[in-house]
Amino acid sequence: MTVTESTTDVVIIGAGPSGLMAALWLARCGVKARIIDSRATKVFRGHADGMQSGTLDIFDSFGIAEDLYKKSAQALEMTFWAGGKDSPLKRVARFPKWYPELGQYRLVHTSQGNTERALLDGIKAFNGPEVERGVTAAAMDIDESKISDPKAHAIKVTVKHLTEEELAASSKNDTVPRPGDFNYDPADEPYLKRRASGKEGTTEVIHTKFVIGTDGSRSWTRNALGFEFLGDETGDDSVAGVLDCVATSNFPDFHIQTMISKDGRGCGFVPRENGLTRIAAPVANRADATPESIIKSLKEIISPYEINVTKVDWCGVFGSRHRVASSASKHSRVFLAGDALHIHSPRAGIGMNFSIQDAYNLGWKIAHVVKGISPLNILKTYDEERGLTTKQLIAFDKALAEQAPLGGNFSVKGTRQGLQDGLPFTSTTAIEYEAGPFVAKGDGSITSKQHLAPGLIVGRRIPSQTVEKHANGEPHDFGKSFPSDGRYRIVIFAGDISRPEQLRRVERLSQVLELPETFLQHSNGRAIFPQDVFETLVLHTASRDEIEITDLPPFLFKNSDPVNQVFVDNNDSRTWTLSEAYSKYGISRDTGCLVLVRPDRYIMYIGELEDITELIKLVASVFI
Amino acid sequence: MTVTESTTDVVIIGAGPSGLMAALWLARCGVKARIIDSRATKVFRGHADGMQSGTLDIFDSFGIAEDLYKKSAQALEMTFWAGGKDSPLKRVARFPKWYPELGQYRLVHTSQGNTERALLDGIKAFNGPEVERGVTAAAMDIDESKISDPKAHAIKVTVKHLTEEELAASSKNDTVPRPGDFNYDPADEPYLKRRASGKEGTTEVIHTKFVIGTDGSRSWTRNALGFEFLGDETGDDSVAGVLDCVATSNFPDFHIQTMISKDGRGCGFVPRENGLTRIAAPVANRADATPESIIKSLKEIISPYEINVTKVDWCGVFGSRHRVASSASKHSRVFLAGDALHIHSPRAGIGMNFSIQDAYNLGWKIAHVVKGISPLNILKTYDEERGLTTKQLIAFDKALAEQAPLGGNFSVKGTRQGLQDGLPFTSTTAIEYEAGPFVAKGDGSITSKQHLAPGLIVGRRIPSQTVEKHANGEPHDFGKSFPSDGRYRIVIFAGDISRPEQLRRVERLSQVLELPETFLQHSNGRAIFPQDVFETLVLHTASRDEIEITDLPPFLFKNSDPVNQVFVDNNDSRTWTLSEAYSKYGISRDTGCLVLVRPDRYIMYIGELEDITELIKLVASVFI
Repeated sequence: MTVTESTTDVVIIGAGPSGLMAALWLARCGVKARIIDSRATKVFRGHADGMQSGTLDIFDSFGIAEDLYKKSAQALEMTFWAGGKDSPLKRVARFPKWYPELGQYRLVHTSQGNTERALLDGIKAFNGPEVERGVTAAAMDIDESKISDPKAHAIKVTVKHLTEEELAASSKNDTVPRPGDFNYDPADEPYLKRRASGKEGTTEVIHTKFVIGTDGSRSWTRNALGFEFLGDETGDDSVAGVLDCVATSNFPDFHIQTMISKDGRGCGFVPRENGLTRIAAPVANRADATPESIIKSLKEIISPYEINVTKVDWCGVFGSRHRVASSASKHSRVFLAGDALHIHSPRAGIGMNFSIQDAYNLGWKIAHVVKGISPLNILKTYDEERGLTTKQLIAFDKALAEQAPLGGNFSVKGTRQGLQDGLPFTSTTAIEYEAGPFVAKGDGSITSKQHLAPGLIVGRRIPSQTVEKHANGEPHDFGKSFPSDGRYRIVIFAGDISRPEQLRRVERLSQVLELPETFLQHSNGRAIFPQDVFETLVLHTASRDEIEITDLPPFLFKNSDPVNQVFVDNNDSRTWTLSEAYSKYGISRDTGCLVLVRPDRYIMYIGELEDITELIKLVASVFI
Repeated sequence: MTVTESTTDVVIIGAGPSGLMAALWLARCGVKARIIDSRATKVFRGHADGMQSGTLDIFDSFGIAEDLYKKSAQALEMTFWAGGKDSPLKRVARFPKWYPELGQYRLVHTSQGNTERALLDGIKAFNGPEVERGVTAAAMDIDESKISDPKAHAIKVTVKHLTEEELAASSKNDTVPRPGDFNYDPADEPYLKRRASGKEGTTEVIHTKFVIGTDGSRSWTRNALGFEFLGDETGDDSVAGVLDCVATSNFPDFHIQTMISKDGRGCGFVPRENGLTRIAAPVANRADATPESIIKSLKEIISPYEINVTKVDWCGVFGSRHRVASSASKHSRVFLAGDALHIHSPRAGIGMNFSIQDAYNLGWKIAHVVKGISPLNILKTYDEERGLTTKQLIAFDKALAEQAPLGGNFSVKGTRQGLQDGLPFTSTTAIEYEAGPFVAKGDGSITSKQHLAPGLIVGRRIPSQTVEKHANGEPHDFGKSFPSDGRYRIVIFAGDISRPEQLRRVERLSQVLELPETFLQHSNGRAIFPQDVFETLVLHTASRDEIEITDLPPFLFKNSDPVNQVFVDNNDSRTWTLSEAYSKYGISRDTGCLVLVRPDRYIMYIGELEDITELIKLVASVFI
C-alpha cells in the first residue's frame, strides 16, 4: 500500500456546516488547511433546517448570506393548536419569532444542503481548499514534546483515501439529485460528486499544527482523543419522524410554523424553501419513521383537517438525547466542535447554529496563532467561551423538553414561554461570553466602562444600526463594516466633533496610535502590517455641514479609505429619521466612547477616548 | 434586390430605453411584435444616467429592477457650492433627493447601457423578440380604409436589412467593450454584436397593426408621419461637456451629486456605478466637448480643489433645446414616444424616465386592443395622458433652465427650490393623469369617491405600503402585488371583517361579481378568461385570530391562490409597528373601500364596497 506524507497547518475532519465554517474562516484568513470527509458528497436535502438571525449575520459577514436568505422560508411567527376527544382543534397561541432588536435577518428554514452550499461557495470565493471526499481518518498522534512550539507540526493524522468501491460500499443512500429532479439546484452542480484526487486507495500521513474535529455525534476525533460523550441515559427516549414534502392542506396555519397537540400526541409544520413543508409527527421507534407512518400519524392528529402529500423530498428521524464531550480540546492542538462536542434535541432549531458558531469562535483564533499574531494560549478561550454556550444550550433544551416532549402533549404556556423568552438566546444574538482575555469585563486588570455604551454589551456581538456614510450621506448598515476578515476594529464613537475640544480628544487618540511604541507599529517588523490586523472606524454625531472628513486626523485612515470608514449619526438635514445608533447604543452624543471589536464581531472592550492606552495594553496581552 | 413580406402585430422602430420598454410590455402580454434599430449594438456606456424612483418601481413590476439597482450609485442628497474671485468656494446648500414617501427605490445613477441591458434581459425572460439590429425603416404606408378595423394589418412598414458593410459605414464609433476592458460587464455578453439574421442586404415589407416610433430626437417615424418638431429656436443655446471617468479628488463632496458655481461658470459631479464619476463642465461649443477641455474647464472652476482623472469611460455633450412633436400619434395606429416625442435639457436627470414611461403608458393599451379586450378608441388616452406629462416636463425644464443655465452661474435659491420642490414630479411618483376613460374622476358619469382613500389619488400610481400576508404573517411590500402582467386589480380594502356586518358587505360584493351578467363572466365566451384580465386582492384590518382566509368568499380567489391575495393591516400581535397601510392610505379601518388599479398600476377608481356595480360599469366602458 502506498503511503505518502504531507504537511499543512490545519486539518479539519468532517465537512458538515461546522467543519465548513472552520474551513471558510481559515480560507478567509489565508491559512493553509485541508478538510476531509468520509462521505461521497455534501448533503442535498433535509437535515437541520433552522437558520437563526445570528448565524445569518455571520454568513453575511463573509458575504454568503444573501442568496441563501432569499431562497429560504421566513418564520416570522409561530402558533400552537390544541384539541382533544371532546374539543375541536383550535389555535391557542400565536407569538412572534422575530423582532427588530434581534437583527436584520429573520429566522428562516431551508435544507441543510443549501446552507452547506453557501459555505462551500464561500470557501471557493476565498480560494480555500476543496473538500476531500471519501477520505477517512485512521490514526492521530500528538507529539507532546512539540506542543508548546506554535510553529511545530506536532500532530500526525493518518488518513485513508477510499477507492470508488470502498466509498460506494460505505455511502449512505442519500441520493444525489439530478437535473430535472424536484429541488435540484443548478448551483449544486460543482458538488454533485467527489472529484478524483489520484490518491484513491492510498494512505497519507498529514503533519499538521492543528486538528479540528467536526465529524458529528459519532465523532472519530472524539474517540481518538479518548474523550467520553456524557449524557443522561435515563432521559427522554421519544423520537419524531420528520418528512420534508410538498403538500396541500386546509389546516389554517399550514403556512406558519405551528405545533399541534391532540389527545396526548403532538405534531408540527415548518414551512420551508421552494414550497416544501417539514412535517414532524410521532412514530413508534426509529425504524418506523417512514413517510407512510409519519403521514398517517400526522393525519390522525390534525383531523378533521386534511393534508395531501404529493411529493416526498426527504425523510428522517430526530431524537431527544443530550450528550456533551468530556472536553472540547486537547493540548490546545485538537479541537471538537459541533455535534462532535454536543448533541441535543431539534426542538428549537438551533443545533446547527451553535455548531457553526463553535467553529466561528475557533477559526480566527487558530488563524492568528498560525500567522504569528497571537500566542498559543489564546486558544484556551475556545474551551471557555464555547464551553459556556454548550452548557447553556443543553440547559435550554432540557428545560424545553420538560414542557414539550417530542411527539407528545406539550404545555402551551410553558412551551410558548420557553420559545418566546428564549428568542435572544436561540437567535444566538444575545450569546454572551464571560470575562477572559478577549472579554475585558469584571475583575480583570483592564476592565471596560460598560456604562458608556449600555446598548453594546462587552462579551456580546455588536448589534447593527443604520448610520450614514459621511462622504455621501448614504444610509449604511453599520454591521456591514465588521466583515469577518480576521481584523480587529477600533471603533471611535467620536461624538460631536464640531466642538473643538471634542475634536481635540480624537486628535490626541490618533497621536497615541501614532506613537512608535503602540501595537500599530509593533508588528511592522514581522511582515504583518497594522492594517492587516486592525481597522479604524469613526462614527460621529456632528453635522456634515460643520465638519469634513479631512478635519479628522489622517493617521486614522492610513493606507485605507475614509469614504468607507467615517460614518455619521445625525439626522438634522432629514425630514425623516434615519440613524439612531447613538441612542440605541446608549452612547453620549457629545463625548462618545471607544469600542474594540474582535475579529468575530464580539465586543472586547469599551472605554473613554482617552482609554486608547488601556485598549493598547489589552491588545498587547493577546498578541505575541 | 430581394423583397420579402411578413406580418406582425406591432413594429417598434428604435431600441433605446423607450422602445425596449414597449417591447417588454408587449412580450409580457404575449403580443407579437418586432423591434428594429439602425445601430449595430445597444449602448454600453454613458448617455442618460438618472433612474428615478418611479421608473425603478416600474422595472420592479417586471422583475428587472434588483440587479440594476444594486449596481447603481444612489443619490440621496445634493449639495451646491459657490465662490468667486473674492470668496473661496464653499458649500451653500444641501438637500435630500429622496424621502420615504417617494417610494422604496432611491434615485440612482448608472450608464444607460445598464438600463438597456435590464430591459433586454427582461424581454428575453418573457420570450419577447430579439432586437433586429442594423435594420432601417425606409417607408411607411397607412391604409386608411382599414384603420377602423382593429384586426386589420393597416400599416405597411418597409425596412432595409443592412449588409455588414453598410452597417459598418453607418455605425457611430461608440466602441463595443471587450473582456478585460474597464466597465466590461459579462452580463453584456449576449449583446456585444448583432446576430446574423440571414436577411442582410434584403428589403422586407412588414404588414402590421401598430407602429411605435421610439427612434430618438431625429425620429424617422416622426418625419415619415409629416409631424413637426416644435420648439423655442431662440432659447438657451449653451452646451455642457459630459465626461464619465474614474478620478480622485480632494473636493469634499466628490461623492455627492453636486453643482459648483464660480465666477459665472458652473460645473457638477454625479457619483456613478462602479467607481465612476460623471463630470459636467461648460465648453465653448459641441466640437469642443473633448475630455481635455472638459477637465480643464472643470479644474478652473473647482480650484483650489484638485482632481486627477485616471480613466475616461465616455464623453458626450448635452444641450438645452426644448422641442415637442406636433402630435403624438396618427389614426391611433402609429405612435411616437420618448425623444421622438419630446426633447429638453438633462438638468434634472428625468428625460429617459419620461421616455420609458411614455412606452409604459402605451404598451398595455395596444396589447389589450390586439388581444380583443378593449376597443381601438382607448388608444386616444395615450395622447391625452402623455400629452399632459409632456407639457409638464417641458414647463418644468424651462422653469429650471431660468434658474440654472447649462454650464453657467446658477441661482442657489431658485435651483434648489426647483429641484427640491420638484421631487414628487421628477421622481415620477406623483405624475397624475386627468379624468378620462381610465381615470374616473371629475364630472364623468362614473366618478370616484376620492375621500374614501385620500392617500390613494385617482389618476396616480398606487404607492406601496408594508402589509402582512394573512397566511403566514410575513411582511409584504403591497406594491409587489401589482406586477405589470396586463391585469387590472380589484383591491378590496375589506376593513374589519371580524365584524359580521362588514364581512357580509364583502360577501355581497362577491355575489355581484358572481352574477352571470358581470364582466368577470362576460369574457368567457372569447377565450379570454376573467383571471387573465383581473385579479382580486383583499387587504383587511381584522385580527388573524378572529378571521381565517376560509371565512372570505371563495369566489374571490377562483382559480388562484389566496395565500398571495389576502393581506392584513393589523399589528395587534406585534410589539413593533409593521403595517400602517390603512392609515397612510387614509382608509377607514372599519368600513374599508374598493379600489380599481389599471394594468400600469395607476388608480382608476375608488368607491364603497357596494360600488362594485359602478366599477363593473366603468370597466365595461373600456372593454369590447
